[in-house]
Amino acid sequence: MIIGNSYGHGGDIYKNSIKYDFSANVNPYGTPDAVKKAIADSAETVSVYPDPYCGRLRKMLSERIGAPEDEIVCGNGAAELIFQFVEALRPEKTLLPVPSFSEYESALKVYGKETELYMLERENGFVLTDDLLGKITEDTDLLMLCNPNNPTGQPIDRALLFKIITRCRETGTWLFLDECFVSLSEEGSCSSVYTQLRDGDRVFLLNAFTKLYGMAGVRLGYGICKDRDMLERMCSIVQPWNVSAVAQAAGCAALCCGKWVNETREKIFEEKKYLLRELSALGVKHIPGAANFIMICGLPGLYAKMLKKGLLIRDCSNYHGLEDGDCRIAVRSHEENAVFIEALKEVLK
Amino acid sequence: MIIGNSYGHGGDIYKNSIKYDFSANVNPYGTPDAVKKAIADSAETVSVYPDPYCGRLRKMLSERIGAPEDEIVCGNGAAELIFQFVEALRPEKTLLPVPSFSEYESALKVYGKETELYMLERENGFVLTDDLLGKITEDTDLLMLCNPNNPTGQPIDRALLFKIITRCRETGTWLFLDECFVSLSEEGSCSSVYTQLRDGDRVFLLNAFTKLYGMAGVRLGYGICKDRDMLERMCSIVQPWNVSAVAQAAGCAALCCGKWVNETREKIFEEKKYLLRELSALGVKHIPGAANFIMICGLPGLYAKMLKKGLLIRDCSNYHGLEDGDCRIAVRSHEENAVFIEALKEVLK
Repeated sequence: MIIGNSYGHGGDIYKNSIKYDFSANVNPYGTPDAVKKAIADSAETVSVYPDPYCGRLRKMLSERIGAPEDEIVCGNGAAELIFQFVEALRPEKTLLPVPSFSEYESALKVYGKETELYMLERENGFVLTDDLLGKITEDTDLLMLCNPNNPTGQPIDRALLFKIITRCRETGTWLFLDECFVSLSEEGSCSSVYTQLRDGDRVFLLNAFTKLYGMAGVRLGYGICKDRDMLERMCSIVQPWNVSAVAQAAGCAALCCGKWVNETREKIFEEKKYLLRELSALGVKHIPGAANFIMICGLPGLYAKMLKKGLLIRDCSNYHGLEDGDCRIAVRSHEENAVFIEALKEVLK
Repeated sequence: MIIGNSYGHGGDIYKNSIKYDFSANVNPYGTPDAVKKAIADSAETVSVYPDPYCGRLRKMLSERIGAPEDEIVCGNGAAELIFQFVEALRPEKTLLPVPSFSEYESALKVYGKETELYMLERENGFVLTDDLLGKITEDTDLLMLCNPNNPTGQPIDRALLFKIITRCRETGTWLFLDECFVSLSEEGSCSSVYTQLRDGDRVFLLNAFTKLYGMAGVRLGYGICKDRDMLERMCSIVQPWNVSAVAQAAGCAALCCGKWVNETREKIFEEKKYLLRELSALGVKHIPGAANFIMICGLPGLYAKMLKKGLLIRDCSNYHGLEDGDCRIAVRSHEENAVFIEALKEVLK
């Protein structure tokens, strides 16, 4: 919860009167029926405390991922796990490429000591390059990466990612790798590094149900880590019942929705092509990225103009290295995307 | 979530095969239909992020309690707020009367420096007395109390409670007062101290929807505090979306269930009378307390014997000052309570 007016994220449909929300990167095709049913069914049993072990959910995740259950931790949304991880580590020195998801820095402000911002360059589309490797030293306790990155959508080159993992092994650096958007990225653009990890690797992989399965309101995320001490420390600093019974039921149902996921992914990337074509035709600068969202650049005042038309987009000017006119839009359904493009045309007139 | 086998609470129906659960102190009459409906309805809109301000819920709570909205904080269950509060304060020295709810100590182990356990005495039924007042000194950063206490059910004498509040004012001590069971206590036995607080009081009142409204699986708690800096600090150390949209909807629905609450309370206290009568008739030592649970004493091995019969009760031997044979049972429906008494008779044979 937040107090006051300090909310700096997309999706704030509560303080804005809007018709269309392009600001939150969730699956535009909503929530699978099986997940909705699991939530509705859970209403009958909510007088009971949640399973503190998340037993059934972790078993299903384990089978899905091919990781042992005790390498899996569940959380009240991926966001909780960010705070838990940073708190459990309390890094002396963190290397944080930016712009990136702001909750990393929020957690580091509370639990980290020194944070070195590594500015990604607008000139090359904010892509991570080999230059980062030289910044990872034995002093670096933690490196926090997002693949594909948010809000740019840029995936990390796979060869570079393995160089980073190798470099982190050499320097004893923890790698926190947010893979929340991997499952909402274009085929072949990026994939989880889990199968490439070795015992003893200090890597924490973050994932969410929120975006892919349209479950943002339920709160469910998970992490995978081969360092079981880290997972135990993370669990020792939260209550035993942080993952609601509703979320656990919804998560188990979601993991059986493979067909729905594939179908919606296909539609999302068809729609993304449409948006990219239209943006190019309009001469609007943008970064396509690999994910289910697009960063638009160079249109100062766009956020406010769109809001006047009832369209909420993500004003990115509060990210490090970004400025007024940098905005992020989620790929939505065709009807919504067409409304967006029409509104954009009017604004550009 | 927890890793391993470290769970030390009631309600662990996940690792035990049971027919009846007397170990969790939730309303035995389940969840009000309106709350179930709110949860089921929320399934249709869960693709949207929760309101980070908990706007509607806090407004309704504000009207109910008569406290301004900005004195109210919501959490992912009351348990989360315990951790948030202790972390936000990071007390040098805490005074903790025990036996009491174990999550206070779990949070203090992580975020507190020195914890002085104040042993309540079995001889006088673990009742809090004026003797505590002398232990509150200018060195005491924090005093954590539960009214009525868990697992003893003993309410704090109202006059003593005000002496404690006055003493805490004098010494600059924070009072964390857990009122989660006030609404499930017998008429006139205890009530919230909110209306008696003054501006500037360093008092945090904890409350839950969990127990009264049968919502343990949803996770929703709230706190009231006149120190807004404390609330801001508490919110700065968690993600913005810790309170799920499902919980917010369920909470709003619950606050309209006054009639259901009164009806179930009446039934619970009728049933409690039945249990107390039967326990007395059987010559079983017990502490009636004021709440919807009863502490049974002096029956070593009772937990295991009941478990064999498919009845889960709360073994209290892991509380400070309690021992094998101290158990807590929740007041359940008449059918269940009768089963319990029958099973107890067999055990006592």
